[in-house]
Amino acid sequence: MVQIPEPAKERLLYLMRVLEKNGAKPVTSHQIEALTGWSSHTIRKDVSYLEGDCGGSVQGYEPAELIRGIKKTLGLETRRRFCVVGLGRLGSAYLNFRAFDFGEFEMVAGFDTSVNRVEILKSPVPLYPAYKMAEIIRRFSIEIALLCVPGEAAQGAAEKLAAAGIRGILNFAPVALTLDGEIAVRNVYVMDELRALAINLPASGFQAPARPPP
Amino acid sequence: MVQIPEPAKERLLYLMRVLEKNGAKPVTSHQIEALTGWSSHTIRKDVSYLEGDCGGSVQGYEPAELIRGIKKTLGLETRRRFCVVGLGRLGSAYLNFRAFDFGEFEMVAGFDTSVNRVEILKSPVPLYPAYKMAEIIRRFSIEIALLCVPGEAAQGAAEKLAAAGIRGILNFAPVALTLDGEIAVRNVYVMDELRALAINLPASGFQAPARPPP
Repeated sequence: MVQIPEPAKERLLYLMRVLEKNGAKPVTSHQIEALTGWSSHTIRKDVSYLEGDCGGSVQGYEPAELIRGIKKTLGLETRRRFCVVGLGRLGSAYLNFRAFDFGEFEMVAGFDTSVNRVEILKSPVPLYPAYKMAEIIRRFSIEIALLCVPGEAAQGAAEKLAAAGIRGILNFAPVALTLDGEIAVRNVYVMDELRALAINLPASGFQAPARPPP
Repeated sequence: MVQIPEPAKERLLYLMRVLEKNGAKPVTSHQIEALTGWSSHTIRKDVSYLEGDCGGSVQGYEPAELIRGIKKTLGLETRRRFCVVGLGRLGSAYLNFRAFDFGEFEMVAGFDTSVNRVEILKSPVPLYPAYKMAEIIRRFSIEIALLCVPGEAAQGAAEKLAAAGIRGILNFAPVALTLDGEIAVRNVYVMDELRALAINLPASGFQAPARPPP
């Protein structure tokens, strides 16, 4: 497999999402340029990384073929299993998140240190006390964990997940994780998302008067 | 103000986070390269966008000065007010998120269509029924909304927020929003985060045997 640069991977992922929304008609790289803001040169370069023939024709690229090519090349064709670790408000929200129902990811378990919580919570998947984490992760070949525990418990839980053989952690706890070994970690920090939104807020309608030089 | 390219903005934001964690010692662009993976050329270029003197010395950049420069240049020095819209599991999780306590953002209100929920929920900020949204947003100059309503309610709620004069929406509902006018929208789609994690999972320890040519 060709080594694809990270930014190209991220763009292909985004392109897939844009195409999924855009309907079934063929799209040219110029139309993709209008949809995404990237230059058609960049788009053609990114598409050139894809396996199989996604080269398009005079009419443009076939969205279904492009999406298939992206999924295949990025390794998104495998249905991966994930679990939710920490079943407080955030974790139990994701436990019942309907967006998971049709996706390429399969939620198979939830874990919490509180046995009481595990017994009481309504859930579409089995819930287990945290001490069973390693056993269940191995038994069901769970690859990914959504880490939703409080900040002070995150590092410890992440280490247990690593020891159990998890391959990726989506970290919602507002702390940085330090893990040995080969584990992919992706942080979803709401504070960072707020900052990223804030730096792109439109200029206020109110125009501050020019300040006279001192 | 210089127009800074989007990718440079995102990198500066990320750099700020890395520096905040890295301690007070001066860092060279080569050390930043090791911390972030970007080339020292890219880093120097990004830093050149910053207002004020962040140019560093032989010892490297002063983290505190760089952070101050990034905040100033990206407009993160203003303390911005936000509200939480939709107080189900996800919304009420954010209502009580401790990471907000020390940040540059100030949570000032929560809204839900259920008057019952608004009356019962424990919260560090006042909660209001959704019909008061426009009035409260204007009264307290709220700029940003965390949109945590169910998917089917998101577009309607976003339109009400837009009409009330909100400037940015952090959208947690798994749908795309279509809004007229000048509003920044940032989507936090857990499904996309899962995909972005999945494409970076380490190769499995199990090595598939080389397949003989057909």
